[in-house]
Amino acid sequence: MQISKFMTPEIIFGNQSLGQIGESLRRLGATRVFLVSDPGVENAGWIEQIIHYLQQQNLDYVLWTQITANPKDYEVHAGVAEYRLKECNAILGVGGGSAIDAAKAIALLGTNEGHIVDYEGVDKIRHPLPPMVMVPTTAGSGSEVSQFSIIVDSARKVKMAIISKSLIPDIAIIDPQTLMTKDQQLTANTGMDVLTHAIESYVSLAATPLTEVHSLQAMRLIAKHLRPSVASCYNADAKHAMAMASLQAGIAFSNAILGAVHAMSHQLGGFLDAPHGEVNAILLPYVLEYNYLAVPEKYRHIAECLGENTSGLSLRDSSRLALKAVKDLARDLDIPESLSAIGLQPDQIEWLSTHALQDVCMATNPRDMTVNDVAAIFRQAL
Amino acid sequence: MQISKFMTPEIIFGNQSLGQIGESLRRLGATRVFLVSDPGVENAGWIEQIIHYLQQQNLDYVLWTQITANPKDYEVHAGVAEYRLKECNAILGVGGGSAIDAAKAIALLGTNEGHIVDYEGVDKIRHPLPPMVMVPTTAGSGSEVSQFSIIVDSARKVKMAIISKSLIPDIAIIDPQTLMTKDQQLTANTGMDVLTHAIESYVSLAATPLTEVHSLQAMRLIAKHLRPSVASCYNADAKHAMAMASLQAGIAFSNAILGAVHAMSHQLGGFLDAPHGEVNAILLPYVLEYNYLAVPEKYRHIAECLGENTSGLSLRDSSRLALKAVKDLARDLDIPESLSAIGLQPDQIEWLSTHALQDVCMATNPRDMTVNDVAAIFRQAL
Repeated sequence: MQISKFMTPEIIFGNQSLGQIGESLRRLGATRVFLVSDPGVENAGWIEQIIHYLQQQNLDYVLWTQITANPKDYEVHAGVAEYRLKECNAILGVGGGSAIDAAKAIALLGTNEGHIVDYEGVDKIRHPLPPMVMVPTTAGSGSEVSQFSIIVDSARKVKMAIISKSLIPDIAIIDPQTLMTKDQQLTANTGMDVLTHAIESYVSLAATPLTEVHSLQAMRLIAKHLRPSVASCYNADAKHAMAMASLQAGIAFSNAILGAVHAMSHQLGGFLDAPHGEVNAILLPYVLEYNYLAVPEKYRHIAECLGENTSGLSLRDSSRLALKAVKDLARDLDIPESLSAIGLQPDQIEWLSTHALQDVCMATNPRDMTVNDVAAIFRQAL
Repeated sequence: MQISKFMTPEIIFGNQSLGQIGESLRRLGATRVFLVSDPGVENAGWIEQIIHYLQQQNLDYVLWTQITANPKDYEVHAGVAEYRLKECNAILGVGGGSAIDAAKAIALLGTNEGHIVDYEGVDKIRHPLPPMVMVPTTAGSGSEVSQFSIIVDSARKVKMAIISKSLIPDIAIIDPQTLMTKDQQLTANTGMDVLTHAIESYVSLAATPLTEVHSLQAMRLIAKHLRPSVASCYNADAKHAMAMASLQAGIAFSNAILGAVHAMSHQLGGFLDAPHGEVNAILLPYVLEYNYLAVPEKYRHIAECLGENTSGLSLRDSSRLALKAVKDLARDLDIPESLSAIGLQPDQIEWLSTHALQDVCMATNPRDMTVNDVAAIFRQAL
């Protein structure tokens, strides 16, 4: 019966909704927009189209694409310098989680002093951020609706979670058509990331009835549409459904936070620069197995939403089907089963486990973990 | 595949969350708060408690309780005059839908010129409203999260729907404990209003996957908890669940709009000053029967969420169970079956039907209606 909080941006969803970017920024008072994206999105032609919408509204813009996957602190600071130099007054992020997280971090330092590492943790932001419109082009990170920005501290080689209501964008614009320019592997990895968001937010200690409905609906959509979405970049129905799944999982985890998969994968992303979606996809079945003890009833619901038939089964047997469903999906999508594929070495596990235990996402994992428990999972997944 | 929009306030939910009212207003920059409520809420002791929280944050306040059920335009204007005279800079609404709708309308005219009737319809508001915190004490109107304010135009004797994103409060604070001071009849009527919100938003032509999950969850909670909530004002679990149901139905209908029940009940509320929840409760089964043709598949989901067993049944038979479930609930709660109980005369039906057809809620009803169709339903319910 504790007090819970829930917050989302204004959401605009649908094919051709990119056309509302200019008007949305104008409505927020923008005159010169700092457009953060990455070269892949630019090459796919989306930036050209978006600039057209900005120009239609007589908005100046500065395009900034000097960011990489797992965005680094120094990339954020270079962006902030340019944002200030060009006297921008709004931020538009277009891309996957890396571009949007970088855009949020630039917004943060646009109105707050100091180094981005000063803001690691919960509720460290003092001043309101500039207006932010975020446009995801993967399904996806959920960052367009979340209160998270994940930035690599390059000195410590760790991913910092910066968490604050101030990081929730003003407007999220989700156009499923942008998913059509992504290849099979990226679609599979980001789709498994969505599944991880849905499951971790659902079993989180901070889940509420408001977040649970979105977690479960995301799972239903993934079960039905992720395979066809990976199979064809032209399947518009599947893209539409996966964009909705990513959005709903994002709403859920922004408010219910996550768990051990993310606490662990943040370390691998920081230390090995490993792709976030793929690492989550590899870790998910192992953490699911570990967490089972905490929430068997919820595992039964997960199994049902993932399309398993639980009728007539005991709670134990039906809840175990959640694991089967996730493993089947990962196998169908050719997700690797081992972290050695992304370069993990056994002698790195102790360091990674110690840091995972301190990650803010670990606090809402439904089963207690010691450093030995984390290390054991890393070793199983090796 | 059209473009849809979704927006909610920041939501704070839980027992004792009233304690966050002062801090929430302070965070929005308030210094002198215009507190809109009604004598019933004041007599129950809630206002005294809330004033204490305002004083703890050194906030000035002006208490305004000169409003009635189905709030009238002249009450809004009297409130605005006082708001301006006392130089308030924020609005706090505490009560049922009437108090909160009145508070929103006062906020509207706090920063926008003219008469409240100038703002009837969709998106007529020009200037940003003062900061608004809304605290519902019924479960309920959903007005604390919605973009609606329903005000009676006393000259025309009609309820005007004012609809705008600007009417979505900044923060909604929902404390289930406030439901414990309500009598059985009010709990039953407002609970049936929540059911009407859940069902009408679910079958609305503007429903989206984001709203549907909240509509359905509201129905599940109502099916399980409305009877016990009516039975005892001390049942804390039932109050908690019904507060959540009202919140989720409110999020759904604010974004998916409503249907013919509300289009028709707005006319009765304006013309006869009839209690909104009770009128909705009476009309709901008749409109459900009429709309069945449009969405049988959705009716089956409604039946399932309301606890009916549809296994092995045809689509037609299972969808018809939605009607049975709603009628059973209304009967259990002693809801009258006839509008003559609230004073409707046969010769008023033509006027009411003509106006109902023009109500903004009619546009999203899933089955087309002519003035004769509306009149036929009024006559059935007579």
